[in-house]
Amino acid sequence: MDFQHNDKTKALLERVENFMDEHVYPAEPEFLRRMNEGGPIGSSQVLHDLQEKAKAEGLWNLFFHHGLHELNNVEFAPLCEAMSKVYWSQIVFNSMAPDTGNIETLEAFGTEAQKEQWMKPLLAGEISSAFAMTEPDVASSDATNIRLSIHRDGDEFVINGRKWWTSGVADPHCKLLIVLGRDADADPDAKHGKHTMLLVPKDSPGITVVRELSVFGYNEWPHGHGEVLFEDVRVPAEAVLLGKGRGFEVAQGRLGPGRIHYGMRCIGLAERALELMCRRVLERETFGAPIATRTVTLERIAESRIMIDQARLLVLNAAHLLDTVGVKGARKEVAMIKVAAPNMACQVIDWAIQAHGGAGLSADTPLAYYYSRARLMRIGDGPDEVHRNSIGKLELARYKKKG
Amino acid sequence: MDFQHNDKTKALLERVENFMDEHVYPAEPEFLRRMNEGGPIGSSQVLHDLQEKAKAEGLWNLFFHHGLHELNNVEFAPLCEAMSKVYWSQIVFNSMAPDTGNIETLEAFGTEAQKEQWMKPLLAGEISSAFAMTEPDVASSDATNIRLSIHRDGDEFVINGRKWWTSGVADPHCKLLIVLGRDADADPDAKHGKHTMLLVPKDSPGITVVRELSVFGYNEWPHGHGEVLFEDVRVPAEAVLLGKGRGFEVAQGRLGPGRIHYGMRCIGLAERALELMCRRVLERETFGAPIATRTVTLERIAESRIMIDQARLLVLNAAHLLDTVGVKGARKEVAMIKVAAPNMACQVIDWAIQAHGGAGLSADTPLAYYYSRARLMRIGDGPDEVHRNSIGKLELARYKKKG
Amino acid sequence: MDFQHNDKTKALLERVENFMDEHVYPAEPEFLRRMNEGGPIGSSQVLHDLQEKAKAEGLWNLFFHHGLHELNNVEFAPLCEAMSKVYWSQIVFNSMAPDTGNIETLEAFGTEAQKEQWMKPLLAGEISSAFAMTEPDVASSDATNIRLSIHRDGDEFVINGRKWWTSGVADPHCKLLIVLGRDADADPDAKHGKHTMLLVPKDSPGITVVRELSVFGYNEWPHGHGEVLFEDVRVPAEAVLLGKGRGFEVAQGRLGPGRIHYGMRCIGLAERALELMCRRVLERETFGAPIATRTVTLERIAESRIMIDQARLLVLNAAHLLDTVGVKGARKEVAMIKVAAPNMACQVIDWAIQAHGGAGLSADTPLAYYYSRARLMRIGDGPDEVHRNSIGKLELARYKKKG
Amino acid sequence: MDFQHNDKTKALLERVENFMDEHVYPAEPEFLRRMNEGGPIGSSQVLHDLQEKAKAEGLWNLFFHHGLHELNNVEFAPLCEAMSKVYWSQIVFNSMAPDTGNIETLEAFGTEAQKEQWMKPLLAGEISSAFAMTEPDVASSDATNIRLSIHRDGDEFVINGRKWWTSGVADPHCKLLIVLGRDADADPDAKHGKHTMLLVPKDSPGITVVRELSVFGYNEWPHGHGEVLFEDVRVPAEAVLLGKGRGFEVAQGRLGPGRIHYGMRCIGLAERALELMCRRVLERETFGAPIATRTVTLERIAESRIMIDQARLLVLNAAHLLDTVGVKGARKEVAMIKVAAPNMACQVIDWAIQAHGGAGLSADTPLAYYYSRARLMRIGDGPDEVHRNSIGKLELARYKKKG
Repeated sequence: MDFQHNDKTKALLERVENFMDEHVYPAEPEFLRRMNEGGPIGSSQVLHDLQEKAKAEGLWNLFFHHGLHELNNVEFAPLCEAMSKVYWSQIVFNSMAPDTGNIETLEAFGTEAQKEQWMKPLLAGEISSAFAMTEPDVASSDATNIRLSIHRDGDEFVINGRKWWTSGVADPHCKLLIVLGRDADADPDAKHGKHTMLLVPKDSPGITVVRELSVFGYNEWPHGHGEVLFEDVRVPAEAVLLGKGRGFEVAQGRLGPGRIHYGMRCIGLAERALELMCRRVLERETFGAPIATRTVTLERIAESRIMIDQARLLVLNAAHLLDTVGVKGARKEVAMIKVAAPNMACQVIDWAIQAHGGAGLSADTPLAYYYSRARLMRIGDGPDEVHRNSIGKLELARYKKKG
Repeated sequence: MDFQHNDKTKALLERVENFMDEHVYPAEPEFLRRMNEGGPIGSSQVLHDLQEKAKAEGLWNLFFHHGLHELNNVEFAPLCEAMSKVYWSQIVFNSMAPDTGNIETLEAFGTEAQKEQWMKPLLAGEISSAFAMTEPDVASSDATNIRLSIHRDGDEFVINGRKWWTSGVADPHCKLLIVLGRDADADPDAKHGKHTMLLVPKDSPGITVVRELSVFGYNEWPHGHGEVLFEDVRVPAEAVLLGKGRGFEVAQGRLGPGRIHYGMRCIGLAERALELMCRRVLERETFGAPIATRTVTLERIAESRIMIDQARLLVLNAAHLLDTVGVKGARKEVAMIKVAAPNMACQVIDWAIQAHGGAGLSADTPLAYYYSRARLMRIGDGPDEVHRNSIGKLELARYKKKG
Repeated sequence: MDFQHNDKTKALLERVENFMDEHVYPAEPEFLRRMNEGGPIGSSQVLHDLQEKAKAEGLWNLFFHHGLHELNNVEFAPLCEAMSKVYWSQIVFNSMAPDTGNIETLEAFGTEAQKEQWMKPLLAGEISSAFAMTEPDVASSDATNIRLSIHRDGDEFVINGRKWWTSGVADPHCKLLIVLGRDADADPDAKHGKHTMLLVPKDSPGITVVRELSVFGYNEWPHGHGEVLFEDVRVPAEAVLLGKGRGFEVAQGRLGPGRIHYGMRCIGLAERALELMCRRVLERETFGAPIATRTVTLERIAESRIMIDQARLLVLNAAHLLDTVGVKGARKEVAMIKVAAPNMACQVIDWAIQAHGGAGLSADTPLAYYYSRARLMRIGDGPDEVHRNSIGKLELARYKKKG
Repeated sequence: MDFQHNDKTKALLERVENFMDEHVYPAEPEFLRRMNEGGPIGSSQVLHDLQEKAKAEGLWNLFFHHGLHELNNVEFAPLCEAMSKVYWSQIVFNSMAPDTGNIETLEAFGTEAQKEQWMKPLLAGEISSAFAMTEPDVASSDATNIRLSIHRDGDEFVINGRKWWTSGVADPHCKLLIVLGRDADADPDAKHGKHTMLLVPKDSPGITVVRELSVFGYNEWPHGHGEVLFEDVRVPAEAVLLGKGRGFEVAQGRLGPGRIHYGMRCIGLAERALELMCRRVLERETFGAPIATRTVTLERIAESRIMIDQARLLVLNAAHLLDTVGVKGARKEVAMIKVAAPNMACQVIDWAIQAHGGAGLSADTPLAYYYSRARLMRIGDGPDEVHRNSIGKLELARYKKKG
């Protein structure tokens, strides 16, 4: 048992942190100012320049197991935390969802042609992508509710339906939609094989981005969640991932690393919030003494530190399991971090907001935006309740077997 | 002891609810749509038309003790709750902060001339107003930190300084700023008489609205919190409220009813959230059954009902005390609702958001916006912590005396 | 709407409080000392003497609507709170469960002969009684699980089965058991009429008190919860309450006032805990200042005051409803206090324990014992979860009807 | 980074678990029965026999770094967890506080003679010991409050004062008290060197165990907390640990491993509670379905699993730090587990109690007793609040330095 990161990780972490200090933090005030004015900044020149710098320094595609540094989940985790402290800087390092999950999906399940067409430019940062699973009219936490129809017609698939919370679709660089739908040709009483996943060019005829969805008033840059209408959209048969009726297999394989990222992003958001809180309470005085001297402040800082460190250890443990026994063996642990990390982050950020007064809710700090991110993560990719049910059932199964 | 509202209140409540059903709820979707697009709608024609309708029906200035219906705090409370269910509809009934508090302040402390100039058009809904107390560079929860300087120069006061979270200043109808500042001429070692409150026309030379502050990502219509710079702003001596050096007296007198409104607004937000939650969980199905049948759903609905009813009773009790023994005697009870109601509302709305999934965070429901309102109320007008300290000290005082 | 108690209540409250100050509080240390030594003191001479004093002063059977003062639920509530501050003093005023509920049941459903035989000596404090409903082998929160069999044999009922948590059975004065059982003669497929309630003399042949159950290590005086075995116990046909097969009707009728008492007992426990906490933190110093000056202390005192006052108002509102519209109309409100009051008391007492350090857990204060009482009330008479489910369903029903 | 225990630990863990299954769990019902009857069982023959068995199997003094297996903190941690599942079984393995801490103190700071006299028989399980630090009249969370006086008189120390919560003193095998007191000869204005720690034979003249303190209603076997009066108690000069005036140094050195044990005991208690909860909800049915199928049950099981795993990782991380950088470098992490583990255990056990109904509060399960143990650990060895303050200050120090 060893709680130290290896030397490779430590060295990369230092490089990422240095990059953050030199290039990212200095750019943050400008981004906050734009956020206060409500403007989207996804394709700004500043961001592009930072990307070029990161690429030049070899801090690129860090999330990708088959990338330059060949990092496993445990090794990428602290880097993911570091870059999440300024949330949008994940784009700078080409390590932002949904591209991360989409690239991993292509790597694991894509044909050579699919990789060439889509994975290569994604890894180069030339294009971005979106993931279309959630639907507006049904409770998506039960995946069997999916209604978007995928019908095989000769050499093509025909897509009809409506998605929303299609993350990334609003980015002007977005060229690819990975779409999960119901196989309209499958036997409705079949137990398996009823869903298909397709690679759909965003500019396909019949695709309309109906609107962008706000989260707590934010226009949700950089994710740009959209509502997307598919009307008789046609893609060639080769656009299928893994095979007709195998959509769930692909979806499942995608979950492991993605949730580690989810978790570490929350750790990063929370660490940043705690740092801002500490600095603030040391500076501000009320009734003749710094707020930092109040025991209620000390209690919250202490609880934040405990909660963050616990959550980080839980995520790292899940990452370690994922690296050693794989997605299936880490099922419970991966579900646990999906619940624990965002809830922890919401609480820590909320305390930091409170310590800042009005500045915590406006765009004078990134805190309110960070809260909205953490709050969304309690819903996105399945709400807390669905994951807690899974964990509970897995736990009970230990005693059913024995009994 | 009687927990029933009197007949006058019941009759008015029915009229307000009918008005809401007929005119306000039907207009809500349009407002949500605009909110999703980030647009301010404070001075929309729709709103103006609704105001005319409310005025015509005698549902106007309901908050005002000296208004048409002469309602005391207990009597206005349920009306305030009802209209807060669609938050902006308080404007429709001319019962929205900060105008409510400003009107009450003018009524209690204004000269006849001040009432004629400012209170009359405010009561008529012809103009709106702002209240400037909080400052960006100091912890405003300790009022002695106030730095904006008010200096007497001959027949005029000269104002220099910076305010923010100046609620209402962004409304194009806003014509009046009530400003609290430090008396630059007072002895700095004096215990009292160091603050002055002035009535300042918004178009006075030297006033600059530097920017509007967002709350989460909302541009905070209808309140329109602004950062305001005062540079050598001059007002005549008659613009003072109550008298030079008596600013705190005025500020204190303002607090009682305002906090009842704070409380009841939270009750209204929470009731609406619970209603939306109930309707949603009855409709949506996962894994073959409505979400409403899950015990975790039932637990949250039950806890919401308990929390809302407790908070409402606490607010009504404080209102009753305010009506019978006045602000001073109700000090602890009024502080208690300032803490209890917004925290309750945050929790209930958060559960409702969770029950809605993504729709709870976007503008497809008013929930995320309501959360931002309730969250702001944990900070505005003094953060939870300051009020809890006051309550704690008042409680301890009971035992110090005896001991 | 009026939050003041009437004059009759105020006068009685003053008398009860004076009695507590003069007679009960001075006796408390002796009771705590005995508790530390683990001894039962239910039938002590001290207690008997206090009862005689209370009876002489007309402070007797205060809970009883048809007693000397004819108090309704709202009027008894503050007296119940006052006497619960020293938990066992409810015995002093002959107002302790389960005698309270048993007397009310006899009054509502008993024949003249039953009243003469049992209610009269109970009201006189000459005997005490027990209530036998819960069973060890089934989840009693679902009443249909009840297994104890009641079979009609000629002019007698024959009882066989096992009960536990039979409150009061360990008191040496206990002479009567009110027993709820399954009607062995009823059609098992019938929807109603399957349960019967009997008045059973404790000294009936075939009754064995197998053991007494501890709660958190306390031998649970004064309640003395017992496990009771019934083997061919025979009672005459006249021992039935209301009639064969009507046991549930009786059980239901019993619930309203009992839960108001439940609630007010919790308020009393919590108020006492808060008082002890305040006194303690004013006295004790750490690191050069009284604990009372720490903001975390002030926060807990403030939250305690808020929670207690909210819970009291909720209980009084339910009592008012019970007095005005009856058990059926107050169903939701009565369930709400069953959940809210014990949970509130557990939290407030826990904070008070923490403020006392070791003294809070030992018998140097009544706090740990009070915690055990409040904690038991989250389970006794149905666990939180069952009541929350009921409340949730009643709330949802409002929207089902409309939809 | 590696989250797996090494092979030595895994092998020992299996042996401990087998021993528990074969010998300890079968003895548990008898212990619970005695607990229900309120009887102390510290020196029972059963316990003695189990100790002999454990010694024979080499499962003895497992906690001791210099023992047979030479386990460090990380290696002992899972064994400590396993044996804490049946709380008193720590005695079986001679690994129960306060003997553990006392042995470690003697090993680290004792002279050869002191080790021979006291450590040897403690390691052999021939005697037990107590630790006397807390005092009844002052807030012990501030150690400078200590009043017990230690005065040097020729070749002897003379002790006068009163201690309580002297853990272990009630055990009939207890022969040694380690006593911390104020150096009566020291300059009261000196900053250091004002406290002395002594080894005091329990049968010294002048020592009176005034009474035993209950925790909730438990007589606190096996710890047997006592209130102890010291009247002119005399020990020879050689009884001092480390040296006159160096008592705090000794006390500090004691803290590291002790708190790891604290933490792992809580993990053990919580794991056992979760197991009991799972088994119970699978068995019991209400309203036609096992309680295990309710989502509120699944949520609590899931949260319990998350909370336990997080706390365990936090304790193991602190243990790892202690093993690698020592007490001083692990100060914050050690304080963090002192807060996190008992609070976690209280919550998990509370849920398990609720799932058991009345059986959870009585001695039919060990749950209520376990709650009392976990609750005590939130106070013993310094209350939560003191540790949170330390953690908060250490966290803030990171930003003070930089700023």
